[in-house]
Amino acid sequence: MTVTRTSLVDGRTLIYFDSDGAKPRTAVDVRDLPEVIFDSTMRYDAALDEWITYASHRQTRTFLPPADECPLCPTRDGRLTEVPDDDYEVVVFENRFPSLFGDVPIDPATDVEPFRVRPGNGSCEVVCYTADHDVSFADLTPARARLVLDAWVHRTAELSALPQVEQVFIFENRGESIGVTLHHPHGQIYAYPYVTPRTRRTLQSARDHLAATGRNLFADLLAAEQATNRVVVRDEHWTAFVPFAARWPMEIHVYPNRQVADVTELDEAERDSFARVYLEVLRRMHGVYDEEIPYIAAWHQAPVRVDRELGYLHLEITSPQRAPDKLKYFAGSESAMGAFINDVLPEATAEALRGVQL
Amino acid sequence: MTVTRTSLVDGRTLIYFDSDGAKPRTAVDVRDLPEVIFDSTMRYDAALDEWITYASHRQTRTFLPPADECPLCPTRDGRLTEVPDDDYEVVVFENRFPSLFGDVPIDPATDVEPFRVRPGNGSCEVVCYTADHDVSFADLTPARARLVLDAWVHRTAELSALPQVEQVFIFENRGESIGVTLHHPHGQIYAYPYVTPRTRRTLQSARDHLAATGRNLFADLLAAEQATNRVVVRDEHWTAFVPFAARWPMEIHVYPNRQVADVTELDEAERDSFARVYLEVLRRMHGVYDEEIPYIAAWHQAPVRVDRELGYLHLEITSPQRAPDKLKYFAGSESAMGAFINDVLPEATAEALRGVQL
Repeated sequence: MTVTRTSLVDGRTLIYFDSDGAKPRTAVDVRDLPEVIFDSTMRYDAALDEWITYASHRQTRTFLPPADECPLCPTRDGRLTEVPDDDYEVVVFENRFPSLFGDVPIDPATDVEPFRVRPGNGSCEVVCYTADHDVSFADLTPARARLVLDAWVHRTAELSALPQVEQVFIFENRGESIGVTLHHPHGQIYAYPYVTPRTRRTLQSARDHLAATGRNLFADLLAAEQATNRVVVRDEHWTAFVPFAARWPMEIHVYPNRQVADVTELDEAERDSFARVYLEVLRRMHGVYDEEIPYIAAWHQAPVRVDRELGYLHLEITSPQRAPDKLKYFAGSESAMGAFINDVLPEATAEALRGVQL
Repeated sequence: MTVTRTSLVDGRTLIYFDSDGAKPRTAVDVRDLPEVIFDSTMRYDAALDEWITYASHRQTRTFLPPADECPLCPTRDGRLTEVPDDDYEVVVFENRFPSLFGDVPIDPATDVEPFRVRPGNGSCEVVCYTADHDVSFADLTPARARLVLDAWVHRTAELSALPQVEQVFIFENRGESIGVTLHHPHGQIYAYPYVTPRTRRTLQSARDHLAATGRNLFADLLAAEQATNRVVVRDEHWTAFVPFAARWPMEIHVYPNRQVADVTELDEAERDSFARVYLEVLRRMHGVYDEEIPYIAAWHQAPVRVDRELGYLHLEITSPQRAPDKLKYFAGSESAMGAFINDVLPEATAEALRGVQL
């Protein structure tokens, strides 16, 4: 892998990840970009014991541009985009409209009980999987999927070293119906200045389980799932299954068979294997409906500094698709009470996924 | 108020709530309804320490029927609906496709660690606010809004007395973009067999706050909010405000100024006042966009049996609308990490709401 680091015209970092032997990436960003005024602040919700991030500059962000204005395509035929080169394999750059940004100053006088505030001082990056605007992750070759994973590893290592970062979250939102504002195949990386609420809760369960049994909670759950009819794909290094208590009508968890804290700890064989297993999972998922369905793919990594031994790297893929023309919505019971109702049994989902002819 | 209780042809209960002097409700349901096979089971998610409900019979439920097939309109001109009478004021009936139902038997042999199961034995009711198909709650008169509240009080009292019920949740999902499958103005009531996850978390915060200060957390937060520029509507009995740490671009919390556990404890003056305050809040909310926007309105009531003194009845109204043509989505950061990003500052929302000319 060849890593080429450069800067965009407004100072943001852009990094090309290429297979060995690719041509040098030397193009320069010559755009005239309007300045964005950043304001990223976090506020404490004392009832739910959670921090909420406010990023009001994002209201003006790019929204579903036509394909010929896509900012994630390479720069070609004089049309200047976020990527200066006229081609790329995988490229990562800082989001122009980040939810979390640098080190936003907070006036200490505004941080008064019960209205506590803190800076939203993290980082938001965009990961483009291919220069081809019209495909999705499921269409990548195993070699390209592996290159994307290598880029994730690189970014996780580098972002984890930043003093303000407590958790690195790699994810992909895909599909207009779940709010994706750009169609070009891409994911994102959020580096949060705190351990996020859902991770905190699962780590508390893992802490209780370790104290009670001496074992890792996620390793125990994985072993139990491997013995069920909910397994979808399994090889020497990875297991993909529909979890016993899935919240969404389509939900698949992908675990390495060996407990690691985050993607940086995966070995060579695990990395190669992941590319194959994940592509099969995505193709089976879309195959259930004979067309691409919307999804969120979310890497759960251990926090950077604490509770590394409690975590267990895994990927959770969820989709609201519950029938060819129907979505499940996050409505009253889920949103206000956190009480998920799922109309589809996990065993039925697993059977449908296994039954897809690839 | 006149309360008339009857049964639908399949045995479900239907209750008319009418103002005094309304004509007797004597019509009989003569439909030939196909049988629904119920299967409502809850499964335990050991990582998040939450129960998920599975209701697979709901996959066949009615989905966005045309207005002339609306099952919530009264029975007129020979078209038989869920409501046998040819008119009604407020009517409540058991959902034909409930997420939680009666007492579903569980085979104890299937309840084995780590895959714990329990029956989804609660109740789901539909509350129709008016026979008029084409309006919304915001269009009701104060007298009708008060009658709806009286129906909520009646149902909360009765459902709370059921031995399997631990929490009564009154709510409304409104708008196709958040997944509402029927347009007729209506809300729902879920009677859960457990204290829901989000309520459990806020009660834990309230328990910690009470131990540390001797005071109720929500009462303290309300008092603090009342001193800010986030108050939208306030009278002697109620305060509506945009909370300091709002998750959604439109979010309004409505609290009685006196701490009560649930709607049954509201006195006459508070009930009359609520109808006026809530209608003003809804009209201001829609007024910001000069048109009706999608929303979830969720009553947070104390559990039926435990922690009554920790709770504080309030209504939370949330909308994903973040601009005239843009919605906020529940995507990767929110769904997978529980990390909410809001592009709109609460103070800006409150100012916009106060600025609406009614």
